[in-house]
Amino acid sequence: MNHDIDNQSWLTEVMDNTGTAFSLRLSNNDAKLHEAQTEFQKIEVWQTETFGRVMLIDGCVMLSTRDNFLYHEMIVHPALHLHSNPKKVAIIGGGDCGSLREVLKHDSVTAATQIDIDAGVTRASEQFFPELCVANDDPRATLLFDDGLKWIREAEPNSLDVIIVDSTDPVGPAEGLFGVTFFADCHRVLAEGGVLVQQSESPLCHVELIRNLRAAMTTGGFENLHTLHFPQPVYPTGWWSATLASKGNNLQRLRESQAGLQTLYYTTAIGRGALSTPPFLAAALS
Amino acid sequence: MNHDIDNQSWLTEVMDNTGTAFSLRLSNNDAKLHEAQTEFQKIEVWQTETFGRVMLIDGCVMLSTRDNFLYHEMIVHPALHLHSNPKKVAIIGGGDCGSLREVLKHDSVTAATQIDIDAGVTRASEQFFPELCVANDDPRATLLFDDGLKWIREAEPNSLDVIIVDSTDPVGPAEGLFGVTFFADCHRVLAEGGVLVQQSESPLCHVELIRNLRAAMTTGGFENLHTLHFPQPVYPTGWWSATLASKGNNLQRLRESQAGLQTLYYTTAIGRGALSTPPFLAAALS
Repeated sequence: MNHDIDNQSWLTEVMDNTGTAFSLRLSNNDAKLHEAQTEFQKIEVWQTETFGRVMLIDGCVMLSTRDNFLYHEMIVHPALHLHSNPKKVAIIGGGDCGSLREVLKHDSVTAATQIDIDAGVTRASEQFFPELCVANDDPRATLLFDDGLKWIREAEPNSLDVIIVDSTDPVGPAEGLFGVTFFADCHRVLAEGGVLVQQSESPLCHVELIRNLRAAMTTGGFENLHTLHFPQPVYPTGWWSATLASKGNNLQRLRESQAGLQTLYYTTAIGRGALSTPPFLAAALS
Repeated sequence: MNHDIDNQSWLTEVMDNTGTAFSLRLSNNDAKLHEAQTEFQKIEVWQTETFGRVMLIDGCVMLSTRDNFLYHEMIVHPALHLHSNPKKVAIIGGGDCGSLREVLKHDSVTAATQIDIDAGVTRASEQFFPELCVANDDPRATLLFDDGLKWIREAEPNSLDVIIVDSTDPVGPAEGLFGVTFFADCHRVLAEGGVLVQQSESPLCHVELIRNLRAAMTTGGFENLHTLHFPQPVYPTGWWSATLASKGNNLQRLRESQAGLQTLYYTTAIGRGALSTPPFLAAALS
């Protein structure tokens, strides 16, 4: 959505369910770089003045050049550092390829498969966010454009170590990715000790969604749930979460990172802080 | 500032220097609860739909009912847990009394003095944020309405353990609170091992300010600087920082909290994560 505030042009996302709106000032009158209506959704890319480029899907901000490192690092690195030796990883959604890039920073990973329903997202990312796509040609990477629900349903039992659900909000194509049937399929496909992580919206304003998501994961067979939290300025309330769970044995304490792991936000201490549940959230989830 | 978006009434703060704007939907047409022009600044209180009440000073959002616990806990608890035995604490600014309340949760504290230049802020907080003022009658508390710069300049050497600078942005009355002269005075007034903490804006968008603040603290005599970070949805970018430093000996690792310390956000692990500098910020500050 494009609005005027004080006679300047802004890209404004109104979040009805949080009663908030967030706006980024556009750089000029030709700020819309891309618009495509795919079979699944409407994809836009805008040029902002201070946050670089911004991708929207169906009017919701998905990522910006400036701050996507927060989300991508935090949906990937805590999960991979909680697994003792992650080799085979699947990313459901994640078409911008930023999560794939983070996964492939782990030397232990031998195969990473990204399954996004919409090739249009990856094509837009290749063109407007090429820095997120630098690992797409890694020989360990496979990019599929397919229904993630179906892919997981048909995958071999015990064939994955980590599943990362890097989805849009739970409406439209992503709705099933928040349900029990999907999580039961994920549980079957993960090997013992496997880790599931799913983006789970704002820890301040979407507690009901988080509670439902955790219940669905538990019903789907998962144990050891943790809702981790991190800043994400372009998302509603600027504070976001992901919810982790494991198949079988306890999640271990976050491993120290391999030597030379390059990140912009993630450190072991930040990861451990993110996995510590704030008392207000623990109370709301209990 | 009060704007219309999609024909609804919103309280919108435009942040020119970050190219962002944040809006909260107002609850009804009588949403302005309070407006006062004091000798120092304009104070407003508005009723929002989802964030409770919001206080603005000179058009900038200072706090909301819903999320002020993040800022107040994070400007207070890391500093007090880094000091080995904090007894005497001063809060410069902090007229809403939320930081004072957090300080007085520490059993070690024997005296906490709040020095805000503008009694109008405290009067508005007593009326519209009474939950922040519950410790104002604690026998250890002293509330002064005076110039914090002058108060620190005239204070006895080695008389304080912790100084918390809970100020507005570095324009108007708060400008001097970001300068070398003030920090040199703070250094003199703190006892050996004393801790200073000052709010220091967004770690994503105000790196220049943080760098200047750290340089001023260092020139003022401080050592062991740490810029800690935490979510704060109603502030620009939803991600905020405070910068800590010590007089003399090394800051220790965060102490475990006393039994029964009641917080909504702070845990020891969250505090340690907040004190771990993200690599992007370390690079920007070096």
